Amino acid sequence: MSTKTIETVDFERLKTDIMNLSEIGKSPDRGIYRMSFTEEDMKARSWLIQRYQDAGLEVEVDGAGNIIGRLVGEDDTKSWIMGSHIDTVPAGGHLDGSLGVLTGLEVLRSMKDHGFIPKNSIEIISFTDEEGRFGGLFGSEAFCGELTPDRIHTAVDLSGLTIEQAMKNVGLNANDALNARRNPDSILGYLELHIEQGPVLDTMKIPIGIVEEITGLFKWQVRLTGAANHAGTTPMNMRKDAFQGLAEFSLEIPRILEENGSEHSVATIGRVSLFPGSANTVPGRVEFSIDCRDTSQEVLEELFDTFRKAISAIARRRDLMFEFDVLSQVKPAHSDKNILDAIQKACESQNIKYHRMPSGAAHDAQIMARMTKMGMIFVPSKNGRSHSPAEWTPWEDIETGANVMLNTMMELTI
Amino acid sequence: MSTKTIETVDFERLKTDIMNLSEIGKSPDRGIYRMSFTEEDMKARSWLIQRYQDAGLEVEVDGAGNIIGRLVGEDDTKSWIMGSHIDTVPAGGHLDGSLGVLTGLEVLRSMKDHGFIPKNSIEIISFTDEEGRFGGLFGSEAFCGELTPDRIHTAVDLSGLTIEQAMKNVGLNANDALNARRNPDSILGYLELHIEQGPVLDTMKIPIGIVEEITGLFKWQVRLTGAANHAGTTPMNMRKDAFQGLAEFSLEIPRILEENGSEHSVATIGRVSLFPGSANTVPGRVEFSIDCRDTSQEVLEELFDTFRKAISAIARRRDLMFEFDVLSQVKPAHSDKNILDAIQKACESQNIKYHRMPSGAAHDAQIMARMTKMGMIFVPSKNGRSHSPAEWTPWEDIETGANVMLNTMMELTI
Repeated sequence: MSTKTIETVDFERLKTDIMNLSEIGKSPDRGIYRMSFTEEDMKARSWLIQRYQDAGLEVEVDGAGNIIGRLVGEDDTKSWIMGSHIDTVPAGGHLDGSLGVLTGLEVLRSMKDHGFIPKNSIEIISFTDEEGRFGGLFGSEAFCGELTPDRIHTAVDLSGLTIEQAMKNVGLNANDALNARRNPDSILGYLELHIEQGPVLDTMKIPIGIVEEITGLFKWQVRLTGAANHAGTTPMNMRKDAFQGLAEFSLEIPRILEENGSEHSVATIGRVSLFPGSANTVPGRVEFSIDCRDTSQEVLEELFDTFRKAISAIARRRDLMFEFDVLSQVKPAHSDKNILDAIQKACESQNIKYHRMPSGAAHDAQIMARMTKMGMIFVPSKNGRSHSPAEWTPWEDIETGANVMLNTMMELTI
Repeated sequence: MSTKTIETVDFERLKTDIMNLSEIGKSPDRGIYRMSFTEEDMKARSWLIQRYQDAGLEVEVDGAGNIIGRLVGEDDTKSWIMGSHIDTVPAGGHLDGSLGVLTGLEVLRSMKDHGFIPKNSIEIISFTDEEGRFGGLFGSEAFCGELTPDRIHTAVDLSGLTIEQAMKNVGLNANDALNARRNPDSILGYLELHIEQGPVLDTMKIPIGIVEEITGLFKWQVRLTGAANHAGTTPMNMRKDAFQGLAEFSLEIPRILEENGSEHSVATIGRVSLFPGSANTVPGRVEFSIDCRDTSQEVLEELFDTFRKAISAIARRRDLMFEFDVLSQVKPAHSDKNILDAIQKACESQNIKYHRMPSGAAHDAQIMARMTKMGMIFVPSKNGRSHSPAEWTPWEDIETGANVMLNTMMELTI
């Protein structure tokens, strides 16, 4: 029978886990290298399975390599799921993903410690390749049944190694990932704790972010083509300088976001290549990326159109040719109201400050939202830093986050 | 005794030379590869020496590898010099440099044919490494006595090969270049014919440019440093986007040139690198080149200051760090009035349209102006194209240019 008496996790135990996992794949001074199916990832997987077993959870590794630990509830036909990932980007930090998995594990351990039996079963899942050695979000997509044989056959890492070979090298069969799909009817909802990876909570000095939605995005590769000419002999008024076209567009981005976007809109030009790219040649061609995000699909569509028209107009005026490819397009995901309320209630019951906010980064939760009700809890990232050894969250904020996670699950499962 | 009866060169002979030289180092569809002291350059040098000898000129190769042919005049103590270069950039065209050398040769051959003995000797010089495999303008600098042992010891090509080794490989001693200096008192002046390498004459449909000055320049490598952050999680107002700083400066360039420059001012951002350079990261650092040219040293100094202040102000407002290195600084060179008048007279005597203009590109003439009186003749570049297989000048314009060259030398030497 359930009783509602656990208020805090065993924080020292959680901290020890975080420190121990951070040693696996750690390179001196250059962050953690634990990309999916590398030797280091496999070490971390074994370590995590052992932690699950030590905690007395039912352990399963599904066909996609997702590592699942289950605390069996009164009714085992349906589960709540907590999840994140333990793979890292190259030179990553110690919290991105790992914190969510270890916090989920600690929540289940704390329940076990107190003899708490939830109404429904609760699972903690470490999803495979969230970070994208082979494209990203592989495990959660498999779990949601969104994986196709084509995606499996074409997934390669930067060195050209296929995911099939990489999984074979560690004794796994990539095609088994097609069997990882879980029946949505057996799932009650999904909760993920993650570091914010942005500066908002740190700037506001608030320990908990309640994620209302995960932004959607579109990503373009744009090419503007003019004419490459000698930088000394070509008068300014006879140039077709492709880079000047990009500069003009780049400065219009803030105006466009203000006029056509929402308060959550962001857009970034993060990659630029000039051709021929020499100091004494007017750049005849520029290729650049645009990454644009918002929490509303309508706003994204409006920005998509407005960017296209803005670049077209600039190109026409400057006699440049404008082409673009859509590299990716992802729809926003919205959190479930009941889960958000449970998180908020958990904060309020412990007098913890919170801030309702969007997530600008993609997470396994974004995929999980396609199959079930979803909610996310953020803890602050010092200076917004992530995907780097500079990734840091104060221990007291991690403790607060873990306790909010515990109390949210208690709220949801009783 | 001199008589002034030659009005035209043997154009078919010149054309044959141009076509034959263009075969040396030609790569199918990808232009000419005849960088200094490569096998192809050495072939072209042997070919040119043979042409000089066939023409009955006195031939000398000086310590810098400059190939000198001399038509001895009534007074051999002083010479007029015509010159250019036969080395090319990688994948270069058939006219840049070569046209000036072969036209000069043809002028001397035509004089010889007609038994014309000039008052003073006339030399045609093919200068070594104008294009810069080892830094550029090597031969003319040596000839003017501007070369230092340090420059020789530190000159390397992109593969790291030193000029000392490259010259040794073809049986030359780089230190002999220090002996190539000619006594300025023995030189009456310098005349160079070159393709414009810009679009002005082609656009105006005028066959002859009379070069009044060669622009000076300054070249910077600039670094703007902000903060690299996640493109999804960092709100627009919390960013220190280094690229946006560059975009803002880039768009100010035309205004600055109009307000602080002259009609000849040009400035180019030709090279840009973003760091980390990934689509989903706000660029924390941008490095870029500025190439700025004008015919007036005062204007260049004004632009130098104005650019510095403009970037400083942008950096301050955007909370970026601004650093720059001056990669090079070259003072403008001015043509000699008497030589310009001689060129103009040569045009007028044959009813040839001309346009007085600056040269935006550097030439051996720019170095030669430091030791003697200098003048330059331009012929049109189709669409302003150069340093590329697309380099082209209509044959009739080449013929016109060669005849103007001949008549200018006649005018100067009688």
